[in-house]
Amino acid sequence: MRGLDEHRAATLALAAPLPAVEVGLLDALGLVLAADVVTDEVLPRWDNSAMDGYAALAADVARAAPDAPVALRVVGDLAAGSADEPTVVAGTAVRIMTGAPVPPGADAVLPVELTRPADPRVGAWAEVGGVVEAVQRVEPGANVRRAGEDAAPGDLVLTAGALVGPAHVAAAASVGRATLVVHRRPRIAVISTGDELVAPGEPLPRGRIPDSNSWLLAAAVQEAGATALRLGPTSDDPDELRALVAALDDGRHGTVDGIVTSGGVSVGAFDVVKAALTGVEFVSVAVQPGKPQGLGRLPGGTPIWTLPGNPVSSFASFEAFVRPAIRRMLGLVDVERPRFAAVAADGWRTPPGRAQLMPVRLTEPDEPGAVRRGDDGRVRVWRATSGGSGSHLVARLAVAQGLAVVPADVPEVRPGDTLEVFLT
Amino acid sequence: MRGLDEHRAATLALAAPLPAVEVGLLDALGLVLAADVVTDEVLPRWDNSAMDGYAALAADVARAAPDAPVALRVVGDLAAGSADEPTVVAGTAVRIMTGAPVPPGADAVLPVELTRPADPRVGAWAEVGGVVEAVQRVEPGANVRRAGEDAAPGDLVLTAGALVGPAHVAAAASVGRATLVVHRRPRIAVISTGDELVAPGEPLPRGRIPDSNSWLLAAAVQEAGATALRLGPTSDDPDELRALVAALDDGRHGTVDGIVTSGGVSVGAFDVVKAALTGVEFVSVAVQPGKPQGLGRLPGGTPIWTLPGNPVSSFASFEAFVRPAIRRMLGLVDVERPRFAAVAADGWRTPPGRAQLMPVRLTEPDEPGAVRRGDDGRVRVWRATSGGSGSHLVARLAVAQGLAVVPADVPEVRPGDTLEVFLT
Repeated sequence: MRGLDEHRAATLALAAPLPAVEVGLLDALGLVLAADVVTDEVLPRWDNSAMDGYAALAADVARAAPDAPVALRVVGDLAAGSADEPTVVAGTAVRIMTGAPVPPGADAVLPVELTRPADPRVGAWAEVGGVVEAVQRVEPGANVRRAGEDAAPGDLVLTAGALVGPAHVAAAASVGRATLVVHRRPRIAVISTGDELVAPGEPLPRGRIPDSNSWLLAAAVQEAGATALRLGPTSDDPDELRALVAALDDGRHGTVDGIVTSGGVSVGAFDVVKAALTGVEFVSVAVQPGKPQGLGRLPGGTPIWTLPGNPVSSFASFEAFVRPAIRRMLGLVDVERPRFAAVAADGWRTPPGRAQLMPVRLTEPDEPGAVRRGDDGRVRVWRATSGGSGSHLVARLAVAQGLAVVPADVPEVRPGDTLEVFLT
Repeated sequence: MRGLDEHRAATLALAAPLPAVEVGLLDALGLVLAADVVTDEVLPRWDNSAMDGYAALAADVARAAPDAPVALRVVGDLAAGSADEPTVVAGTAVRIMTGAPVPPGADAVLPVELTRPADPRVGAWAEVGGVVEAVQRVEPGANVRRAGEDAAPGDLVLTAGALVGPAHVAAAASVGRATLVVHRRPRIAVISTGDELVAPGEPLPRGRIPDSNSWLLAAAVQEAGATALRLGPTSDDPDELRALVAALDDGRHGTVDGIVTSGGVSVGAFDVVKAALTGVEFVSVAVQPGKPQGLGRLPGGTPIWTLPGNPVSSFASFEAFVRPAIRRMLGLVDVERPRFAAVAADGWRTPPGRAQLMPVRLTEPDEPGAVRRGDDGRVRVWRATSGGSGSHLVARLAVAQGLAVVPADVPEVRPGDTLEVFLT
């Protein structure tokens, strides 16, 4: 049997960052930069005011105090966005709003809170032609944001490989970029297989069950950051599946960067995926659930992952083998979910010689919502699907918040044992 | 001045979970269940096979062993999805695939791995009419999944208030639901204001700067789980802003569950938001950045948040005051980002009497990508916008991974101090 890490490496080897595309700023959210953003201008472009107040000469107000106000004649008015350049000379000031360029001659900004109009009837502000009194000194350069203080030509504003979030979008806009160059979002086809499957909500004849895997995997694909093309369920006729997979690989369903199937990969007499697909390597992986796995590259180059059909097996296999590959296609270097140490609150036997991916909950089974931490800060975890290995217990999977990774050489988990857990 | 927590409570009081809507399973991803999902049937619906093998009577094979095989005549074949009901009697077996209903008479399933065909020429499986030999005993009930083992009528499968992820989608599908009832996704309008703003990529005359706030806030709205309607920038003409806000409140831009503006709320002579909007309470909040805040409810009932215009102030204000309200509209009870304890790697002065929301990075400034943890597991954090309060330093905001929350009574952060941090 192939080890968990070995199979994970094989599946990651099928994935590479997708080609770069240029998209609008909001369309870049959740994608990964494929190129650095280097600014070609200074930011801010002009010395500008950090406050609402009056641009003036610091020397003029060097002795200003509440009981010794210094009067300045207001010779101009600069709203933010104004292109005016009124000149400040000794004894004068220009009213200026936050962000407006500091006018020629001025070397500081007096915040309005440190001034008062000579004519108290005009309100807080002295208008152009009026007189303002400074009641406190300011240093040269006070409340002036210097040109280039935030960025200078050639500065690296954003780095290739960054996952784009709101601050990246804002930084790009602030240096005048309306677009970003990112790795294209993967589009992943999902196919559940099996004659027993009917669409949820349809009548269930004897022996039939609702298809949940195509929904599970399509949702997981989207949660991973890709677009899901949900297809199927297909029947147990190998020709039907073979034709669908060939059409996906040929581009007849648009761009498809990967295909995920569920079911039909075990030792059954009718295992449709095994029967239909050539060029796919079917292997036993030393993991529970999720032992029967397949992966390969179709003739057209499309990677394919064939997961087992038990819903919990599909879910765990997707987390272990497909999600990292999708994250790699997105352009991420770190494709793993962060793991942390937790404490087992119950115990269970584990399969000999196989690693285990156990769905766990972080909340008390009898007290929903309560996350308990020990004195060491570690959380306690319980099996989400208690009572048996439970790989078919899809309705209980919804209480799981994560998976515990139990190494192959651990024969048993006992209450109090430390477990490596990641949230899903 | 109003305290940070007091203002946060005021803004949360403006928000309530939005009405319930019924949506398709994948459209429910990232939304919050507005109703429990209670199954009205048993799951699985029939006793069914957990393995590929042969349904038989455990008593028949009680003495089976490799050197004492027990021969059983194969009287039927049950693929998954089959509606057939071949009866098993003593001395017979029915070939059965995983998931197929256990046929009448059988009380256990022999995995194919514990059998061999009497005629070794036929491959792994004996066909109908042939004979299979059991080479190992199984207990009654072995490899049979019992009807109702996963869920019984009346069982709570999903709980109102849950954030829908892949496992919730799968659980709903597995009990035959094609839709889920969730709180409607909020649609939030974003308006940046100011005569100085031009669209990113447009030429910049003197005094003008690219609009980054509408992009920042629209991206943040989407990251919070809502849909963003990005408008503006609008000018410093109060009539223009007043007309736009009234149109949004009247429903002329479709459903709008909240409005966020940036800029024009300080002490300036032309502060357009303050001039334009009545019914909005403008307050000073004891936080840095983000002191000038406004909030209220428009005549049509639409909540509005008016944030300051410095990009870092807008970002921090959104995190502190708007994001929790959006999360509440989504239907979440726990609307806060999780906080953790970190260690300050550099030091800085903080404003007297005001809490501080400092953008921080978790990676070494000189060694990008390296997150360092101390022996106690705590990460070190650095100011993202080093050198000044930096509330305009939007290009540097992109290196921040989170915000440190420094309480109002802390006069100074020193290297080694413990800080409360949340990731953004």
